[in-house]
Parts: sequence; C-alpha cells; structure tokens
Amino acid sequence: MTKSDAAELFQQLKNCSPDEIRSTIRRGDYCGQTSGLGLGYLQGNVAIVPSKNALDFFRFCQRNPKPCPLIGVTDGGSSLLNDLGKDVDIRSDVPAYNIYRNGDLVETTLDISNIWTNDLVAFVLGCSFSFEEALISEGIPLRHMEENKTVPMYRTNIATTAAGPFTGPLVASMRPMSQIDAIRAVNITSRFPQAHGSPVHVGDPKTIGISNIDAPDWGDATEIKAGEVPVFWACGVTPQAAIRSAKLPIFISHAPGHMLITDIKSWDTTRLQDPNL
Amino acid sequence: MTKSDAAELFQQLKNCSPDEIRSTIRRGDYCGQTSGLGLGYLQGNVAIVPSKNALDFFRFCQRNPKPCPLIGVTDGGSSLLNDLGKDVDIRSDVPAYNIYRNGDLVETTLDISNIWTNDLVAFVLGCSFSFEEALISEGIPLRHMEENKTVPMYRTNIATTAAGPFTGPLVASMRPMSQIDAIRAVNITSRFPQAHGSPVHVGDPKTIGISNIDAPDWGDATEIKAGEVPVFWACGVTPQAAIRSAKLPIFISHAPGHMLITDIKSWDTTRLQDPNL
Repeated sequence: MTKSDAAELFQQLKNCSPDEIRSTIRRGDYCGQTSGLGLGYLQGNVAIVPSKNALDFFRFCQRNPKPCPLIGVTDGGSSLLNDLGKDVDIRSDVPAYNIYRNGDLVETTLDISNIWTNDLVAFVLGCSFSFEEALISEGIPLRHMEENKTVPMYRTNIATTAAGPFTGPLVASMRPMSQIDAIRAVNITSRFPQAHGSPVHVGDPKTIGISNIDAPDWGDATEIKAGEVPVFWACGVTPQAAIRSAKLPIFISHAPGHMLITDIKSWDTTRLQDPNL
Repeated sequence: MTKSDAAELFQQLKNCSPDEIRSTIRRGDYCGQTSGLGLGYLQGNVAIVPSKNALDFFRFCQRNPKPCPLIGVTDGGSSLLNDLGKDVDIRSDVPAYNIYRNGDLVETTLDISNIWTNDLVAFVLGCSFSFEEALISEGIPLRHMEENKTVPMYRTNIATTAAGPFTGPLVASMRPMSQIDAIRAVNITSRFPQAHGSPVHVGDPKTIGISNIDAPDWGDATEIKAGEVPVFWACGVTPQAAIRSAKLPIFISHAPGHMLITDIKSWDTTRLQDPNL
C-alpha cells in the first residue's frame, strides 16, 4: 500500500463504525494508529498475560484504577470480549501487537492468532483518547496534537500499589495548558474514570519526581509556554512497565497508539457501570 | 452478656473509630450487626472463595459492578486487607461469618482463623449502608428503618453477566419513597458507585420480574403508600446467591448485616479512585 493509499483508507475509516473498523483491521487491511478513528467510542490498551499471572494482574488493576481502568477481561480459554463490542476477538482486532518474552520486546506483529493459546488472559484498559477528545471538544487545545507529536510521558516518584510480581512507579502523561484550562480539565476528565479520570498532579514536575520536563521517558518533549502549567494524568504505560519488569515468559500488548476500538460510547459511564441494564 | 450490656456496648461503639470497632470485634467483645456503627465510613460485604475460583469471581465483579462494587482483595496467601484500613484481618474483623459448603449453610461463627487457609482469597464489596446514610442525611426517610425491619430484597428478571461458574439473576433491594424523592435519590446515590450506585429500576415491579412486591425473597415486606414509587437498587445478595449456586467446596461470607467496617470515608470516591495519591 502506498502512503497516499494509506491516507485515503484512514479518511474512509474515519466515517466507519467501530465494528467496521475492527473488521478492516481483522482482515489485515489497516495496521496504523487508531487516534482519530472511532471518534466518540472508548479505545483500550491491551495487556495479555499467562493465566497463572492473571489473578495478580487483576489485583494490580483493582488497586491502581487510575493508570489501570479495567473495561474488559476474557473468559478462561476464550479470546472474545463480548462486553466490549460485536464479535470482538483480541487475537485479530488490534492493528498491531508487541510481543515480549521475559520482559524483552521480541516481535511486533499484526495478528496473534498463531501465538494465542487458551492459557492466556486478555485485559483491556481504557485509554486517554476519550478524555483528549472531550478536552478538545470543550475548547482546550492539546499542544502535542497541534505539533503532531506523541504526548510526553514520565516515570514519577508515586508508587503503584503492588500485587504479586507487578509493581513500579506511576507513569504520567503531561499536557501543558493555561491555569484556568487546568481547572476545567480536572472537571472534564473526572467524568471519564474509564479513561484515567482526573489528573494526578498539576504544577511543579519536581513534586512528583520529574527532574527534567524536557526529557520525557517516553514520547516527545513538549513546550510549556509562559503562563501555562503542566497537567499530569495517570498513563497506560504504567501497567505495561509493571508487567515488563515482572519478566513474564510471555506478555502481549498493543503496539503504542494501536488500540482496540470498542463499541462503548466514551461518555457513557452509566452504561459502563450498568452493562446489564 | 445481658441484653442491656449489649445495648450499652453498641452505644459506646457508636462513638468509636472504625479501627477501635474492629479491635473490639476482633477480641470477640462485639458480634452484633454493624448498621449504625462507623457512621461516615464505607462498610463491606465479604466473599471468601478458593483461589481456584478467584479469577472467575474477579471477572464476575468486573462485569457486574452495580451488585459487586469491589473495594478490596487479599493477596495470595494473605488474610490482610491493608487497602481498607489499619491492620484489617479478614479472619477476625467481621462480627459474624456464614460458612457454606457445596452451597449449603453449615455454620455461623464469630472468627474464621481456624478455617482460613492460604488457599482462600477474600473479596470485599461496598454495601448499601453508605448510600442509606446519605439518603437520610439529605432528608429522604427510609421506611424499613423507621419500621425497624430488614430491607426487602427480590430476585429480578435482570440477568447478571456470567463468569465461569458464577451466574444468576440480579437481586435488588427496594425502598419506597415519593416520586420527587425518587429523583433526588437517583442523584444522591449515583455519587456512591462503591456502594451500588444509582438505582436499577424505579416504578412497576413487574417490569423487572417481581410479581408480588409483598413477598420479598429476603428481608421484610415494606408498605408502599399512596403516591409513592418503589425504588430498586442492586444488592450484595446478588454475588452471594451466584456463589452459592456454584456449589463451591467452601464459601465464607459475612452474616447478614454483620459487615466489615473499613477506614474509607463513604463520600471519598476520589480517594477510592486514587488510593496512592
């Protein structure tokens, strides 16, 4: 596929339903990033671990809901996630996967059907795209998007609550904004607990152990202009880093920015609390 | 202990901190109901299952958050629940426990230290006392309390989302109130997702499969006066009934009304979402 073909396909997919986008991804016809697709629908980080470690990872999510807002878990021996949408199959419905063995990235692949076994359990955690969409729609500009960069992410000195082998620092993403927008952003994002919720810190990066804001641990450095404050949110890299540190024999995640697009409306927190009603 | 001694002790405990109440319970000096104690603090339903079934029960809670608002889980091989308060030990800190074997109630006991093994996992789910306290403080009277009865509870025709052996109907508790109070009650209880959150139904009981409102499946029948509507909330009996139906070799729950009193402030949903901050 040429670059212009890919750009055209992306434009077409922007008008498609989550179900149609997942079908396109499943067929192998789209393997790009999902930011900007499925607008209005919750997207998810993916963490697939051996069943032996699943109970401890569940505990880790329960104890650290801001970095790990759990929205779906597969049944034993199944790769389906019916709670998250029509026919969702975690083996094929994510555009790209990273495979880690003993904590090391060994492969990036577009489909894990040949790697999946019934001894794996897949967890899906809500991601920041939903709250970013809400901030933009409320008129709060996001610099990393304006500059076409990846949001900067930092290891903080805030510890997660450990569970079994899973432990480590909270990783936070940073978005600079005016002080009045920071207050509005707290209000807006607190409505999205399934997408990391309200910030974990507003103001001096040193307070949360970040010595050099211009040197993020992941993503791209982003300018903080005069009169702006850095606003930090819990980030889905937190559980990824915790799982990598645990050096499991196998761990599969989405490739960065290549998320699972669900059928859950981003703003529909009531439905998420009431899946049966 | 005479009845008047017990009443005097209850009055004394009303002025004690959750930690002091748990210590009294742990020593075996109080084994009564916890309604009215630890006001302002979240109380929890207890469900202790074999580790073999823990992952499926975790899934059941994640998929059914209204009846199963999970607030704490023990680590493998531990009976402590540090997230929920100072030195909380699930073997001794609940006033009374029901022991079920293969789904049958075989014993009620004040301490499970002699039954506990490292192969058990304890789950604590927020209970309705917190939202009832909020309703009363907002001036919404609760008839079952005024009449000194147990709230009526009903099997509904709303199915839970199954996980492994855990399945069954949603059980709902009912509180009659004026139509305007019903609207206020939705608003108030929606602030307490960790205590079953907003109602699952307001109005005609038949809509959710309850044919005779005067014959609750648990608790006491409660009059609905002219101009009032019945308001139904998801109830912690839901997971208990689901676990009993699964006929596990062992299942331990709190005895009805004999809850775990935590150090978590009932209104502190921010803290619950942010345990590390």
